[in-house]
Order: sequence, then C-alpha cells, then structure tokens
Amino acid sequence: MKDLNEILEGIEGSCEHAKIKAKERLDNLAKPLGSLGQLEEIAIKLSGITGKISNPMINKQLIIMSADNGVVEEGVSSCPQNITAIQTINFIRGVTGVGVLAKHAGAKLKVVDIGINADIDYPGLYKRKIRKSTWNMAKGHAMTREEALKAIETGIDMVEEAVREGAQVLGTGEMGIGNTSTSSAIIMAFTGYDADRIVGKGSGLTEEGFENKKKIITQALRINEPDKNDPIDVLSKVGGFDIGGMAGCFIGAAYYRLPILIDGLISAAAALLAYKLNPLAADYMFTSHCSAEPGYKTIIEILGLKPMLNLDMRLGEGSGCAIAFNILEAADKVITNMATFEEASIKNDYLIDIR
Amino acid sequence: MKDLNEILEGIEGSCEHAKIKAKERLDNLAKPLGSLGQLEEIAIKLSGITGKISNPMINKQLIIMSADNGVVEEGVSSCPQNITAIQTINFIRGVTGVGVLAKHAGAKLKVVDIGINADIDYPGLYKRKIRKSTWNMAKGHAMTREEALKAIETGIDMVEEAVREGAQVLGTGEMGIGNTSTSSAIIMAFTGYDADRIVGKGSGLTEEGFENKKKIITQALRINEPDKNDPIDVLSKVGGFDIGGMAGCFIGAAYYRLPILIDGLISAAAALLAYKLNPLAADYMFTSHCSAEPGYKTIIEILGLKPMLNLDMRLGEGSGCAIAFNILEAADKVITNMATFEEASIKNDYLIDIR
Repeated sequence: MKDLNEILEGIEGSCEHAKIKAKERLDNLAKPLGSLGQLEEIAIKLSGITGKISNPMINKQLIIMSADNGVVEEGVSSCPQNITAIQTINFIRGVTGVGVLAKHAGAKLKVVDIGINADIDYPGLYKRKIRKSTWNMAKGHAMTREEALKAIETGIDMVEEAVREGAQVLGTGEMGIGNTSTSSAIIMAFTGYDADRIVGKGSGLTEEGFENKKKIITQALRINEPDKNDPIDVLSKVGGFDIGGMAGCFIGAAYYRLPILIDGLISAAAALLAYKLNPLAADYMFTSHCSAEPGYKTIIEILGLKPMLNLDMRLGEGSGCAIAFNILEAADKVITNMATFEEASIKNDYLIDIR
Repeated sequence: MKDLNEILEGIEGSCEHAKIKAKERLDNLAKPLGSLGQLEEIAIKLSGITGKISNPMINKQLIIMSADNGVVEEGVSSCPQNITAIQTINFIRGVTGVGVLAKHAGAKLKVVDIGINADIDYPGLYKRKIRKSTWNMAKGHAMTREEALKAIETGIDMVEEAVREGAQVLGTGEMGIGNTSTSSAIIMAFTGYDADRIVGKGSGLTEEGFENKKKIITQALRINEPDKNDPIDVLSKVGGFDIGGMAGCFIGAAYYRLPILIDGLISAAAALLAYKLNPLAADYMFTSHCSAEPGYKTIIEILGLKPMLNLDMRLGEGSGCAIAFNILEAADKVITNMATFEEASIKNDYLIDIR
C-alpha cells in the first residue's frame, strides 16, 4: 500500500465541471427549479465525485469497524465490553439492525475486527486486529502513533478492496462499547468545546453515569493534551481503533473518488478526523440520519453537511447509512431518468413560467 | 359504494393489542431499547393498523389526484394552468419526478383526472372528472356540496380498487396549479390562523405575487365564511377536487385499514380534512418529507405526526411518499427479521445491562 502522506497528497477535490453539467441537466428537467431540494444537491455532488452525470449504485458496501476501548474500565458505558464481540458476530450473521437494513438496501456488509478485546474467528470476519482493545485514555495514550497510522491504513485497505470489487458507494459503521466517549474526546480536542456541550448519554446512561462520563473524557484530554493541529496525535491519544479505521475509509474513499456515507456520532468523529487530515475529503462525504448525540451536529456543521433522515435513531452500527443508500439511489434516478422540459413536451413559452 | 356517513362511522381506531405485541417484540430485539427511534414507532403503528406484527409491502400504490382551480385567474400561481394537464400525462408516461421515484420504490402510480380543465384521454388515466376546474373561490364557492361529496367518494373508490388488488400501503400525490392556495385556505378555515402564518410561496412567486396570494386567500375566506365544524362546507367553499379526492383516500384507507402516506402541503391539507371528518383517520397516516410550506407544520402538529425525511423538497406530486415507502419497508424488515436477544445469544445477564 502507498504511504499515508502520499495518499493524503493524492486526494483531489470534486470536479466542478461535472457539477456544473449535472446542475444544467437538473435545471432542464420538467420541474420547478431546485424543487427536489437535497435530492438535486446529492445528484450534483455524486457527479462531482465520479465525473459522470449518471451514477448507478449496484455495488454498495457497508464497512463496519469493531474494536474495544480501554476507557470502559472507568464506567463510561452502560453496556458490558463483550457486547462488542457478540454483536460483531451477529453482524456477520445478518441479524442485527444494520444486518437487516443492509440486506433491505441490497448492500454488502463487511465486518472488520480492528481491535476487539477477544479472540474471534468467525467465517467472513476481516481479521485485522491491531491490538486487543486500546489502553484507558483516562490514564494515558489510547494507542501508539504507529497503531493510529495502522488503523487508518486498515480503512484505506478496505476501500482499496471495495474499489477492486467494483463498489460504487460506501457506508461506514462501527461497534465498540465506549466509543461515544472516544468520539466526544476527539470532537472536544479539535474544537476546544467542553464536555457539557459535546458529550451525550450514549446507549442510555443514568444521570450519575453521565456526569462520570463527562468527567472522565475531560480528564483524558487534560492528561493527554492532544495537539489539535496533528490529527494522528489526537487519534492516538484519545481515539479508538474503530474510529481510526473509519477515518481511513473516508480518506480512501476521497482518494479513490467514491461517495461515502456518514452514520451517527462515531462515524462522524471519524469523518472529522479525515477532514482534519485533508479537508477535501468532505467532498466525498454524505450524511444519513441525524444522530441524537449533541456532538454530531457540531461535526456536520464543520463539514458543511446536513442530515437527510430524521428518524431519532441512536443504534449506530451503520444503520443510518443502510437506509440512506436508497436516497442516494433515488437522487441518481432523478437525474438519470426524469424527462427534460423538451422531452416532457412542455413548450418553451411555459418553460419560462414554470420556473 | 357505501354512503359517506356509513363509511365515516365504520372507521375504527388502530388495534392497541397488536401495538402492544409489536412493542414487546421490538423490546426483545438485540439492540438498546428504542434505539431505532421512528423505525420502531412506524413498525408499531403498522401493526396497529393491520393487526399483524409483520407487514410486507409488496403491493404499493401511489394515487395522484389532478384537478384545476378557478382561483388561478387571480394570479395566485407562477405557473400557467395547462401545466396541470401536461404533467398529468407525464405522470402516466413515468417521466416526472414522482414517476421516476415511484418506479424506484416499486410502487404502482395511478393517475386520476378528478377535475382538470381540459379534455384528456390518455391510456391508463382514471377518468373521474367532476367538472373542468372549480370556480374561483375568491368570488364565491369553489364547488357545490354535492361535488365535494363526489370528490371524497372518488378517493374512497380508488382505495376500494387498491384493496381489491391487494395493496398493502398507499401514497398520495396531486397536480393542480393553484392548489397551495386552496390548501392554505382550508388550513386557515380550520385553525383560524391568518395568511401571514400559513401561506407560502408555492412553486416560486415574486414578493408582489406572494402578497397578492395572501390577499386573495383571505378574501376567499371572508366571502365564503366556511363553517369549520362542517368539513364538507370547508371543502366546497375554499377547497379543490384534488384535495377532496385525497381526503377520500385518507378516509378510505382508515376504513379499509391500510397505511397511507402524506406527501407535502396539499396532501397534508387533505389529511387534515379527513381528520376533521373522523379523527381516527390519523391512526392510519404516516408523514414522509418535511414540506417547506409553513402551513404543513401546523397540520402535522394537529395530526400528531413527525416527518421522516429532511430533503427540502417542494415538488409535490407525491414525490415524498415515493421515497418514504422504502422507510416503511425498512421498519417492517426490522421487526420481522432482526434477532431477539435470545436468538442473538446475548446472555441474560448482559441483556439487562445492554438496556
């Protein structure tokens, strides 16, 4: 694989020419200008990514990064750690939320063990474990700088494989008890905002547990002092292997010019990390649902994105991406199959009026 | 067909027992309680409608009501009237926004001429014209009371046919230049709110046109004095054939216990009318996207609903329903195919923690 710096330098922004062409076509379709709202924005963005007006999405892949987080020993999660391992296996079995929704969307689910705190050998699992769980960030670095780089490279590897297989769109998902804490720490490190503004209750903490979670994350930042101008430093000190892996997916998607969906908070934290490594990566990102976690909104504002779905989902796993695939496809169907004013036989003198 | 009063009296609320059973199943699925948010709410509501936990939606139908409105002679729309006829034909050709999106959703599109101001005879069109356009509501009644009843019955007829064909879910759409004006008038008649609060710019009026539109709608209400306690009176005085037809669809769906989707403002005004005829009809309604028109939010608050999609769409036609079908189906896949904690082999002692 290429060196990370080489890949980061190889990322180019989306093609403005293709976006203009796509907008021209959309403006000629038989509808009031811009009346399909975000569907039109999506179609334009897709064109900028691939350089093509029409972007069928036959091969859809949802990449799930599973890893454990040492910080759980501080009681920041309401779930026991071995849920990470159990649900990872269930992802492959296709019986979890994201499994069912990915199948509904016709998307292939790829599940990566990038740092689960257990020995797992299940058919179909991508065995890319960096280490069994990170260390406890409340007491020191979560991982070494080398491990952080390896996590990102793992994500890029997964995208390279997807590209070889002909994937046309990617989604991101994760499983890792404690990862709303690492995600919040990353957002706080980059933005300087405090825990009251960013941290949420995750899978369902008590009020006491919630106060403890905020205290622990604040402590992790104080002890580690991550350098916000060095994203790898932020990831290694207060991140997780899952977040590093997903950040690699966002970087890889930008490098290989593939559209890629953000799921909820954790996946958004990975997208922010990728954006900090190269802001052009945002040209390739799409949101899916609006996460209930407060840090999520902060990130998508920074990335200049807006969620499509308003479903109060807080499952994670990539479940929001699985639903959003259909909306990206709908946007492509609009630009590809709708009639122009001319084809719709709406005469030119009405054409002006309808606009 | 049965008498309208007989049908209104025959509507029953959704089945609480089935909803409890559905919630029990959802709470036993391997995920934090309620973490799939609105997908869970949708699955529960579907169960209440059909009495069944699992509700596959193989046969989806989107019913479009097309009609013209006499009030357009007051310059309330930026589009010429014959767009109604032209786009109606294009619906059948499948090349409009809703045509493309319905095909993507695997939904059958049924297009009804319920009052277009032109002679149309196109293969596949449902020819149920009540009259060529309503009268100008700014000068008097839009239609007679008999015509209002006939419009509603036409919608119920369409649902009866859908039921015979085995439809499992319905969507509503419309085409009718001037129908954001009639919709706004209906909302204002029922709520007593003024034009500044309810009226929007429709397909894109100038500031001057917008002021005129508000003035004309206010005038229509002043002249006609619709009785808010008599929904048929409201429809006949300031409504449209399209809105009456869609109101009939909502009534019919409630009577035959079928889930039915609201699209944007006009379809929501029809849903409000159905709700005023029998509030239990709301048990069968689902929203799709959040319309940009100000009156829309007023209605869904009254109906106790919340939009799923946040796509800034303002095309109408039923385009939002076409996308929302997929989300209803996703909700059904969740409740039908996800593993329970037991099936997911998550041991009982973790089961408590994960919740």
